[in-house]
Amino acid sequence: MERVDLRRFFAPRSIAVIGASQDFTRITGKPLYYLRKHGYTGRLYPVNPRYSSIDGLPCYSTIAEVPDEIDLALIAVNFRMVPQVLRECSDKGVRFATIFSSGFAETGEEGKRIQKEIAEIAREGGIRVCGPNCQGAVDLHNNTAAAFSAALDVYPLIKGSVGFATQSGAMGFSIFNLAQSQGIGFSYIVSTGNEMDLTCVDFMQFMLDDPNTSVICAYLEGIRDGKAFVELAERAQDVGKPIVVLKTGKSDVGSRAASSHTAALTGSDDVFDALCRQKGIIRVSDIDELIDVTRIITSFATPPSGRGLGIISTSGGGGVLCADIADELGLKVPEFEKEGLEKIKSSIPAFGSARNPVDMTAQVINTAEGFRNVLQAVVDDPGVDALVVVITMIVGTSATKMALDLARIKKTTHKPIAVVWTAGESLIREQLEILKEASVPYYSCPSRALRSLARYLQFGNYLKNRSRTPSVIELRRHIGFSSEKYRSGVLSEHGSKEVLSRFEIPVTREICTDSVERAVDFAREIGYPVALKIDSPDILHKTEAGLIRLNIRSEEELVRSFRDLLGIAKSKYPQARINGVLVQEMVSPGVEVMVGVKRDPQFGPTVVFGLGGIFVEVLKDVTMRVAPVDEAEALKMIREIRGYPILEGVRGSAKSDVKALAGIISRVSYMALALPNLSELDINPVIVFPEGSGAKAVDALMIFD
Amino acid sequence: MERVDLRRFFAPRSIAVIGASQDFTRITGKPLYYLRKHGYTGRLYPVNPRYSSIDGLPCYSTIAEVPDEIDLALIAVNFRMVPQVLRECSDKGVRFATIFSSGFAETGEEGKRIQKEIAEIAREGGIRVCGPNCQGAVDLHNNTAAAFSAALDVYPLIKGSVGFATQSGAMGFSIFNLAQSQGIGFSYIVSTGNEMDLTCVDFMQFMLDDPNTSVICAYLEGIRDGKAFVELAERAQDVGKPIVVLKTGKSDVGSRAASSHTAALTGSDDVFDALCRQKGIIRVSDIDELIDVTRIITSFATPPSGRGLGIISTSGGGGVLCADIADELGLKVPEFEKEGLEKIKSSIPAFGSARNPVDMTAQVINTAEGFRNVLQAVVDDPGVDALVVVITMIVGTSATKMALDLARIKKTTHKPIAVVWTAGESLIREQLEILKEASVPYYSCPSRALRSLARYLQFGNYLKNRSRTPSVIELRRHIGFSSEKYRSGVLSEHGSKEVLSRFEIPVTREICTDSVERAVDFAREIGYPVALKIDSPDILHKTEAGLIRLNIRSEEELVRSFRDLLGIAKSKYPQARINGVLVQEMVSPGVEVMVGVKRDPQFGPTVVFGLGGIFVEVLKDVTMRVAPVDEAEALKMIREIRGYPILEGVRGSAKSDVKALAGIISRVSYMALALPNLSELDINPVIVFPEGSGAKAVDALMIFD
Repeated sequence: MERVDLRRFFAPRSIAVIGASQDFTRITGKPLYYLRKHGYTGRLYPVNPRYSSIDGLPCYSTIAEVPDEIDLALIAVNFRMVPQVLRECSDKGVRFATIFSSGFAETGEEGKRIQKEIAEIAREGGIRVCGPNCQGAVDLHNNTAAAFSAALDVYPLIKGSVGFATQSGAMGFSIFNLAQSQGIGFSYIVSTGNEMDLTCVDFMQFMLDDPNTSVICAYLEGIRDGKAFVELAERAQDVGKPIVVLKTGKSDVGSRAASSHTAALTGSDDVFDALCRQKGIIRVSDIDELIDVTRIITSFATPPSGRGLGIISTSGGGGVLCADIADELGLKVPEFEKEGLEKIKSSIPAFGSARNPVDMTAQVINTAEGFRNVLQAVVDDPGVDALVVVITMIVGTSATKMALDLARIKKTTHKPIAVVWTAGESLIREQLEILKEASVPYYSCPSRALRSLARYLQFGNYLKNRSRTPSVIELRRHIGFSSEKYRSGVLSEHGSKEVLSRFEIPVTREICTDSVERAVDFAREIGYPVALKIDSPDILHKTEAGLIRLNIRSEEELVRSFRDLLGIAKSKYPQARINGVLVQEMVSPGVEVMVGVKRDPQFGPTVVFGLGGIFVEVLKDVTMRVAPVDEAEALKMIREIRGYPILEGVRGSAKSDVKALAGIISRVSYMALALPNLSELDINPVIVFPEGSGAKAVDALMIFD
Repeated sequence: MERVDLRRFFAPRSIAVIGASQDFTRITGKPLYYLRKHGYTGRLYPVNPRYSSIDGLPCYSTIAEVPDEIDLALIAVNFRMVPQVLRECSDKGVRFATIFSSGFAETGEEGKRIQKEIAEIAREGGIRVCGPNCQGAVDLHNNTAAAFSAALDVYPLIKGSVGFATQSGAMGFSIFNLAQSQGIGFSYIVSTGNEMDLTCVDFMQFMLDDPNTSVICAYLEGIRDGKAFVELAERAQDVGKPIVVLKTGKSDVGSRAASSHTAALTGSDDVFDALCRQKGIIRVSDIDELIDVTRIITSFATPPSGRGLGIISTSGGGGVLCADIADELGLKVPEFEKEGLEKIKSSIPAFGSARNPVDMTAQVINTAEGFRNVLQAVVDDPGVDALVVVITMIVGTSATKMALDLARIKKTTHKPIAVVWTAGESLIREQLEILKEASVPYYSCPSRALRSLARYLQFGNYLKNRSRTPSVIELRRHIGFSSEKYRSGVLSEHGSKEVLSRFEIPVTREICTDSVERAVDFAREIGYPVALKIDSPDILHKTEAGLIRLNIRSEEELVRSFRDLLGIAKSKYPQARINGVLVQEMVSPGVEVMVGVKRDPQFGPTVVFGLGGIFVEVLKDVTMRVAPVDEAEALKMIREIRGYPILEGVRGSAKSDVKALAGIISRVSYMALALPNLSELDINPVIVFPEGSGAKAVDALMIFD
């Protein structure tokens, strides 16, 4: 995937503002106003035939007249004039343009047509475009506020290491403003609108290489190029930068609205969610969660790992509440080691509790060293990976001392510490200022603090345990297959299994024949009992159609059933293509699961796994990944379904061969990549035998585009 | 249950502060300071032998010297002095005492002993006590701040209709302070500490009758008297006051800490949770949720019902995000009716979206009437039960107009409206002030707004649909049984089923006999096939022990099996009491479920229901209620398990007789109340036959205390 060099987009040496207005309260007036307000140091050229100057700057009739090279053109004219303006930019040799104007693909047919036209102009002229229908971009470290959002009314903006790409300008700048008001510093914010050319993924790719950016946030409504997004996610792991994504369109109503609102095509949200799990992307579900998680990440540069939470509270109740929430988030509240426990005991009143969660009681403030010692002991405990400190209604000088103790210890440890200070801000302004200054994140309720810690720990655990996904080329060498296109349509059970076999996926021993003699010979060869099934690409529900006979125990039964089945099939389905009768081994008992493939329009083939029968049908107990998945990832899939204990063995039944099952899931994912026109695969059931005895595809169905 | 008249506790005509200090920064100095700061108008008497006056008030050596009757004594002396002080209060005829001192049951043996002693003194002296180890109480409408929390540093306190009872003083006053800082007004806050005498439930009972209180909040760590709590919950429904509870001790770690922190015995959290669902209590899981829900309730006095959410946004993205979150919360985002849709269409720009969620676009502010018309149309839509309005980065005069439009419509509708204004407070201070003034609740992220609306709608739906739980006496008449005590220990399958039969719970046709001739006769009478089982209270796992024979098809087989079973039982379990052999009908196929009873130490008998087999064992797919439950409530239980579709019929199988099943669940709950020493019951399986064919207990086990 091409990576765009966006340095001159974010930090242009010169900017032309086309359609600039003298009225700084209007969208057309704001970009110039904000650029100057936030100290843009490059050369600025307003362009508008109606003015000769704006706010002391000479104003030009057209961009052609501007006596300078232009790195970035900001375009704020009526959408019908955009093609003309963009042509003039092209003639001028402009490198980047941000089109604020709306009225394009997000509206209707005329808009779509004009958007197509300007895309063509831009491509020919070599202009890379942000927008249209966007609110612009800000490079905080370069003081370049090339945007019109009211979020830029705030001065000064807080510089920092958060890079933020957003498809929705309104939501994005809102989040930016809320985060800034909570003291979070940014490197960039860019809103991409209709993404006619440059997409959020392009900007995020740039930020991955950018030294000013340590964490990348995105607000997404849809993803156009799933492959580019996957590549981005993988590269983010390599460079170790967390990606935090708020993506809307989870629900049906939500995605209906998304497609009418921007021109984004909302992909299947389940696939996106699976991808996040698979690639270590931190997916959040609301604005505050995005801000909270980002604050933890920017406050503690080294991703933590593990799941041990140390809880310290000035009130027993606060500690218990944290323990409850930690439990729900999958964090552990470990017992402390003996040494630390003793240290804590000697630092708190007798009626407190030294065990995790520590109840220091409010009286800990009566000694000079109490809180500091407890804090140090908990930080030092080897089982503690992150800390939460709950301070209730403690105010005044004691509170200030606690804040200073927190600020001090923050400097000496990599372990993330979140503070929950449950008092109204007016009572603890000074103390919160100390925490802010020291980058100790604070919250007024436990769940926000713990959710953020949990998400960061999850990310750290992911980084620690991740396995490199093998490249497709490696896979091909490994598996020894070549890409192959099948004729479109349905493959019968037997045909599907022939394909599976070529990818080393074990299937039942079987032949497809229209000769009863061959059937008898084969049954004798593999031994009774056997199963008979009609094999036809046109009859998908063989059981319901009565075209399966199981547990055939003798030659006579086989001959009779063979003729019966053919007779029924021909009379019931006179139009169906009948390949013959499948003569199939009866497999020994095991656990029924299903493995499938679906092709997602954005992310390509995905592999789906679940327990068979009612688990899939009633409980929808399935999980998915974007192909390919290696065996380690496949094992994670197997373990994350709710019914997993059944594979582990319940009520004294044997443990199933999950390793063999993981191998099948993984090979299915490789196969899905190797068959470019495979649109659907259903292996249902795969029977998983007891440990050491493998697993086998018993029925299968493939559909090609 | 006795209801305590607490009027003179909250609004005493005279208060003695025993152990009062001249140092207002100390706990002993604060009560007097806060009482005067917040304008207590009654008579105040500091008591402390070390001073002759405190802050201009004459100070007495002992309470005996006070020349007045005392309604309330605040006791802030060392815990070892409390018995003496309380005796003096008793001699003085004091009606209520709040004991701030700690060092009692929450610490250890000595403390427990002294607490027992003072409980005795109080009981004898007729003094009702709040505490010990509490932070006191505030009656805001009577300006009586008889507490020492730093939350009272804020002046003035905001009066309102929220009554708040809290076991933890630190957490409770924190929440109070945070809620007040967000503009929520209270009638009372009372912290109960160790609850030696008066409990949160007592205070909540009082608030149910109190005209100043419209919603009751509680922070609980454990409940001592489950029956009183159930009565409270039922009475709250009758008077229509919502109860919002934050109860900790959900997790194992959490409840371990709770029992070491206060002297509260944490009950089984699952039972408490079931009770909340059953009785319409709004249970929240964190501080912010408690505050958010309370704000919605106090802003909109009439509980809404339904689940239709109207979403209006100035940004498409904001609407989509809300739709996603609404979907997860079980709210609907209905299509608008035609008339309203047309009205909305004509009020917004062409590139907006008039369908729910409405995207007005930021340009709606360009017309004077746009927002107001949209708001009115959505409020008027009959499918809309509640509204959320998302305003992104709109600031300045347009924003003020929007705030005024919201304030105006709030006055004309009962439908709850929550505003999500996603901008930093510094940009929209004036607008938020307008909303606050008009009691329009606002949030900076959608999930908090929607979660609160969802919880209030849930409460309203509960009120609308609730069925009166029949009283136990009615039940007895209805069922025709009398309370009966069984011998402690285990009842065998047959013995258990005899009890079930007496409560009209259908069981398999069976006899228990040691005569093979009777067995043969009975089998002939009911027809083959039959099942044989050893019946013994000492052999609980008959299947594993090989003491069951199913599908016996002939007399010979029966005779042989009968002797076999008895032989095996006697040789394998020589010590077991064998009642005989059960001869039992083989029931026709159906869905296996389990119905059970467990006795909870706080809430008494609870009835548990789940699907049988792996659903219970692997997925823990069960639900429970506190007995009694009527058939309507039992149907709710049946429908809320994940595996419910299996009872509805999957893969073409018949719909099961859920009505018969509900009857069994309900009768089991009545039975559990009628048998005071029943400690456990397991009916597993109950087989539920196709609709119209009933359900039957096939195996059962009862254990008595």
